[in-house]
Amino acid sequence: MKVVPKEKGIYSFSKDHEPVESVDLGEPILLEAEDAVGGQIKSEETPIESINWSRVNKATGPIYVKGVEKGDTLVVDILDIELAPQGVILVVPGAGALGDAEFKPKARIVKIEKGLAIFKDVQIPLRPMIGTIGVAPEEGEIPTATPYKHGGNLDCIEVTRGARLYLPVSVDGALFAAGDFHAVQEDGELCVSSVEIEGKALFKFDVIKGKKPNWPIVEGPAHYSILVSDEDLDKAVKIAAEEAVKAIMKAKNWSFEDAYMLSSLQVKIAVNQVVDPKKGVRAMIPKTIVSLDDLLYES
Amino acid sequence: MKVVPKEKGIYSFSKDHEPVESVDLGEPILLEAEDAVGGQIKSEETPIESINWSRVNKATGPIYVKGVEKGDTLVVDILDIELAPQGVILVVPGAGALGDAEFKPKARIVKIEKGLAIFKDVQIPLRPMIGTIGVAPEEGEIPTATPYKHGGNLDCIEVTRGARLYLPVSVDGALFAAGDFHAVQEDGELCVSSVEIEGKALFKFDVIKGKKPNWPIVEGPAHYSILVSDEDLDKAVKIAAEEAVKAIMKAKNWSFEDAYMLSSLQVKIAVNQVVDPKKGVRAMIPKTIVSLDDLLYES
Repeated sequence: MKVVPKEKGIYSFSKDHEPVESVDLGEPILLEAEDAVGGQIKSEETPIESINWSRVNKATGPIYVKGVEKGDTLVVDILDIELAPQGVILVVPGAGALGDAEFKPKARIVKIEKGLAIFKDVQIPLRPMIGTIGVAPEEGEIPTATPYKHGGNLDCIEVTRGARLYLPVSVDGALFAAGDFHAVQEDGELCVSSVEIEGKALFKFDVIKGKKPNWPIVEGPAHYSILVSDEDLDKAVKIAAEEAVKAIMKAKNWSFEDAYMLSSLQVKIAVNQVVDPKKGVRAMIPKTIVSLDDLLYES
Repeated sequence: MKVVPKEKGIYSFSKDHEPVESVDLGEPILLEAEDAVGGQIKSEETPIESINWSRVNKATGPIYVKGVEKGDTLVVDILDIELAPQGVILVVPGAGALGDAEFKPKARIVKIEKGLAIFKDVQIPLRPMIGTIGVAPEEGEIPTATPYKHGGNLDCIEVTRGARLYLPVSVDGALFAAGDFHAVQEDGELCVSSVEIEGKALFKFDVIKGKKPNWPIVEGPAHYSILVSDEDLDKAVKIAAEEAVKAIMKAKNWSFEDAYMLSSLQVKIAVNQVVDPKKGVRAMIPKTIVSLDDLLYES
């Protein structure tokens, strides 16, 4: 099996990056990934001031996926996520939902033991997830810390072991990359970081030809979630609502009015994070209402 | 048992309203309630234009709760919710998350059968909840359509059968009122209405003396949720985060930094609704982390 070491990474998503590996559709590939702070904090004594901020938020890749072209959907199966035995969480003045409060920079080491993340005296069941996952965008270069239509720093707790992600492809080969694993996070990611942890993730790719989603879609056991990002949370919710209502209209062949009504009853608006350069929400639509095809558009 | 008929209601929360009934602590009381459109839509042929908008969002009450004084917490147990056999959902141009789209006013009758709400060909398991529930505010008169610190139009799906609500009391007797029942709603309440339905709810009250929450708190099986409302969703999230971090600091006797970190891992930010005069979010804190007392402040 192909393995991509954590050294081979990028700090932005762009079609100008040279692929570090290529895979066939259906071929499993293992990506190793640094933690989001580039492994720079190994103990609670590490001064936050010593961190090189140009070496954070690395995503392993990019991977060239053969048979995938501009205008397609890249289908990403997250087959497994394996975590290192310890992670780190940190707060930095100016960052997070309460960034303008007065506080000091601080890091805590979080040990991983028997399926639990240990934060001081609190034991939290692990929910391993991938914070940053995406493909090259249509235009320009997007820092790995930012979520958008190409994926990126989605920080969505649904992007977990067993989930399937659908990403719009803007360049042949897609140029997939992933990193920034979290041992556990809750919706909001309030303090700006989670249990940031080194790890390995096993992926398998497929393609849907000639169609793509407007925003990344993650498929869980019961829902399709449309992942929308914007600087303004109100705007992100509005876009997510529009996308959900459009999908219901398509699925049911209903009027706007009827689809809009059903969205009040069946579409859950949830928060991914409120702390990245763009904030993220998801519109969770039950699979009993829409099928994947209702979420994809002809390229 | 005391029963308050649906005719006895208010369209605003204010300490100037005369109570229509009084109860002792621990004494069950049944409130009947109109649906949120004042029962004005009995069929899909009712023209939306014919609705008298000054007769919507009525809350049954106010109830004077004996033994409850300014500065206390009113503890509200929702013992049961009983729904009528049909409800209504409606869309109105200008209203809801997509209010600026082009569409026509429209109502749909939703039948309630065998534990399901039937919207066209979609059958949705009931989750009865109380949309509007609150007490007289400290100052002025707040329309029942608006959520705020006194409660009001919270539209929170956690305010359901078996839940316990904690409200800050600003006037002796609290002047409690409730209405606007929903047979089912999802987080966001995107189209501005849910399955609006007539019903009856059985309440029982208790008091906590000399302490109160800053915002309404709802207690479910596993979480305390702090319910925060603001015109701006980003601001509501920030206030909810502040309240949650304060409670963790108190519960654990931790620094701001440590509480802020734990909030990223254990406090779920969820959306109540994005369509009322103030939008609403909730910070859901596991009961393993905080106890009720950590959420209350000396008056």
